[in-house]
Amino acid sequence: MQRSIAVARPKLPDADALLPYLRAIDQRRIYSNWGPLNAELERLLGDRLGASVVTCSSATDGITCALRAVLEDRPAEKRFGLCLMPSWTFVATPHAALAAGLTPCFLDVEEGSWMLTPELVRRELLAGLKSNLPVAAVVVVAPFGLQLAPEPWDAFTAETGIPVVIDSAAAFDGLSVARTPSVVSLHATKTVGAGEGGFVATRDADLAKRIKRVANLGFLGTRLAEVPATNAKLSEYHAAVALCSLKGWPERRAEFQSVAHRLRAAVEPSGAVFQPGFGEDWVSATCVLRLPDGLGAGDAAMGLGLRGISTRAWWGFGCHTSPAFAHLPRRNHAAQNRLPATEVLAHSTIGIPFYCDLSDAEIAQIGTAFAEIAAATPAPATETYASPAGAFPVLVSAA
Amino acid sequence: MQRSIAVARPKLPDADALLPYLRAIDQRRIYSNWGPLNAELERLLGDRLGASVVTCSSATDGITCALRAVLEDRPAEKRFGLCLMPSWTFVATPHAALAAGLTPCFLDVEEGSWMLTPELVRRELLAGLKSNLPVAAVVVVAPFGLQLAPEPWDAFTAETGIPVVIDSAAAFDGLSVARTPSVVSLHATKTVGAGEGGFVATRDADLAKRIKRVANLGFLGTRLAEVPATNAKLSEYHAAVALCSLKGWPERRAEFQSVAHRLRAAVEPSGAVFQPGFGEDWVSATCVLRLPDGLGAGDAAMGLGLRGISTRAWWGFGCHTSPAFAHLPRRNHAAQNRLPATEVLAHSTIGIPFYCDLSDAEIAQIGTAFAEIAAATPAPATETYASPAGAFPVLVSAA
Repeated sequence: MQRSIAVARPKLPDADALLPYLRAIDQRRIYSNWGPLNAELERLLGDRLGASVVTCSSATDGITCALRAVLEDRPAEKRFGLCLMPSWTFVATPHAALAAGLTPCFLDVEEGSWMLTPELVRRELLAGLKSNLPVAAVVVVAPFGLQLAPEPWDAFTAETGIPVVIDSAAAFDGLSVARTPSVVSLHATKTVGAGEGGFVATRDADLAKRIKRVANLGFLGTRLAEVPATNAKLSEYHAAVALCSLKGWPERRAEFQSVAHRLRAAVEPSGAVFQPGFGEDWVSATCVLRLPDGLGAGDAAMGLGLRGISTRAWWGFGCHTSPAFAHLPRRNHAAQNRLPATEVLAHSTIGIPFYCDLSDAEIAQIGTAFAEIAAATPAPATETYASPAGAFPVLVSAA
Repeated sequence: MQRSIAVARPKLPDADALLPYLRAIDQRRIYSNWGPLNAELERLLGDRLGASVVTCSSATDGITCALRAVLEDRPAEKRFGLCLMPSWTFVATPHAALAAGLTPCFLDVEEGSWMLTPELVRRELLAGLKSNLPVAAVVVVAPFGLQLAPEPWDAFTAETGIPVVIDSAAAFDGLSVARTPSVVSLHATKTVGAGEGGFVATRDADLAKRIKRVANLGFLGTRLAEVPATNAKLSEYHAAVALCSLKGWPERRAEFQSVAHRLRAAVEPSGAVFQPGFGEDWVSATCVLRLPDGLGAGDAAMGLGLRGISTRAWWGFGCHTSPAFAHLPRRNHAAQNRLPATEVLAHSTIGIPFYCDLSDAEIAQIGTAFAEIAAATPAPATETYASPAGAFPVLVSAA
C-alpha cells in the first residue's frame, strides 16, 4: 500500500547553508539577546517592508507583545477587557490575547473573505457585545496567508481609539505594513522559517521600540522591568536559519508558485475554489480551499484519506468550539449565540497537501481524488437558520 | 587601556559539534513540534533526573506553563489570584506569573539562604496578606543556582492545597526533583545551554503531560485547545544545541569547578562570602557573592569597574522596585511596606565575572581589585529599622 501524501512538508535551509553563520556565532560567542545576526535579520526585513521590525520567539509571543505595546498608549482603565477577534483563526490567536491579560471575544467573519473587516467590527461595536467588559483591542487575521490591507485598520484605530494588531502569521509573502502592527510567523511550517520564531512589523518606530521592550522582559537600556513583559527574544541560531531562508526566498517562492499553479489546474475542475490570488499574487505554505457545493469537509477528508491524501482542518470548527475558549464572550446578535459564517467555513473548507516539492505524480493523484469525490457528491441538502442578515444557507453533507 | 573583564562569557557547542545533528534534521525535515531530537533531550534529562521532563522555549515560558498546569488541579475559583514569590528573583519570575493570569505578590526572603522557606511562607499566610485576592500558587526560587530541596514544598502543597513551582533557572547542576515541578533555563548564559530554551521536571508523570499540553497550545492528540495555553515548544535546532551541551557537560563542569576554586581562593581573603557550596557541591554560570562587611554594592561596582572588572546586579533591587511591578501587592507586615532582607541583599551582593575559561591573569586581577577595595572600605555605618523579628541591621556604605 502506498504512503499517504503529507499535508505539509516543511523545508528549511540545510546544514551547509547554515555553516558560515554558525562559524560566525562560534567566533563571537553571542547566542541570543538581540545578537548581530538578529540585528541583520531585523534590518533586512525592515528594508524589505519599509517598516520597523522586531523579531520574536514565535508569532504567538509576537501577538502578545504587540498587544501589550499598543495598550500602553491607552489610559490605564482601557488596557483591560475584551480583545475582539475572529473565531475563524488558529487557537494561538486567543491564547496570545489571554497571555496579554485580555479576554478574547469572538466575532464572525465575512464569509466571502474569511476575515473581519472594519465595517463588520464597527457594526458589532454599535450593536453592543454580550459582556460588561470594555473593548481594549482588536486582533484581525489574514487567513492562511491571504493579504489584508492594513490602512483601513489604521483608520479604524484613529476613529475609535481602539488599537488593532494584525495576525499575519502565514502572510509573509506580499505583506503590506502600515502603523497597525502585523505579526508574521517564522515557524518551520511557514514559507520563510526559523524553526520557531516570528516578527512584528510596523511603520511606527516608537511602537516598535515598545514592542521590543515587551519582548525583552520590560528592559530598555536598564535592568528595571518598565512594563509587563516576557522573554520573546529570537536566538542567534534561529536568526541564522531565518537569514538563510530569506536569502533563498526568491527561488523558494518560485517553487511554491509553480506547485500552486499545477495544483490549481488539477483540482479546480472539481469545482473547488482556491483563495483569491493564491499561487499567483501571493503564496503561503498552506493551501486551504472551499469545497465544491454540496461536499462537506468531513466527507471530503474521508474521501481524500481513502485515496492516500492527508488533509487538515487547520482551524477546526473555529476557536469558540475549543474547550479552553467555549466560555468566552462572543458577538451579541448571533442567533442562538452562533457564528454562522465560521460554521459554514469550518464545514466547507479543507487544508490539502501543499509544499514546495509536491511532485507532479502527487498533484495528479490529488486531482483525480477530487474529481472522484466531487462526482460522488449528492445534490446539496440545504438547511437554513436565522442570522441577522436574514436566512443564511448552510450546506450540510449527506453523511 | 586594557579591556574590561566581562561579567559573563557564554560558550555553547561549536558548529562542528552541531553538524551531525543538523544533517539529521536536514534528512528528516522535522524542525520543531516535539521532534526526535527534542524527544531524545527529554529522555536524557529525564533519565538523569529520575523524573518526567518537558522542554520549553524559555524558562519564563516554562514557569508560565507549569503554573497553568498545577492550577488545573484546583477548583475553578482557586485558579485565580495571588502568586506568592520572592521579590529577590529575576524579573522573568513575576512576568511568568502575570502571563499565567496570576497577580504576583512579593514576599521577603530569608536573609541567610536568599530564598523562601516553607516555614516563612506558612508564617506569611497565617499573618494575612495585603490583598483581597485568594492565594492561587507559590513560586520559589533557587537563587543563582543554589540547590533547593523540593520535598518540603511537596509537603507544603499537601498541607495547604496551594501548588508550588520551583524556579530553578540557574540550578541545572545537582538538581533534585520531586513532585513539585522545577523549571530550569537552557539560555545561553546558563551552564547547559540551547541558545534560548528551558525545561520543566517533575516526578508526577500526569502533571508533566499537562505541562506539555499547555506548552503545545492546549493540544493533546487533537487540534482542540483544551486549556489556556501557549506555544512554548523547543525547536529541533535548540534541541540539537542542548544535546551537544549536555554531552560536553562533564568536561565543562570540571572547567567551571576549577575556575570557581581559583576565584574563591583569590577573592575570599577580602572577606567576600560565596554562596554555600559554590564551585564545590554545585556550579552555575553566574557568581554572586556577599560583599565584605561595610562595603556596599554600589561602591563595589564602581571600585571594580575602575579596575577593569565588569559587575552585574543581576536582580537589581528586587522585583518590587521595577515600575512594572511596583503597584503589585506584597507581604502585609513589613514595616513601611518594605522587604528588609531583599534590600540588604540588593545592597550587599554583587555579580562578578565568571565563565568557564576565565584566565588565571583575570582571576588575579579580580583578586587584587577585591583586596584593594576591601582595604579602602571604612568601618561600617550601621542603620537599623524595624522588622517583624525586631531590629534588623542594614549595612549602608559610607558613599
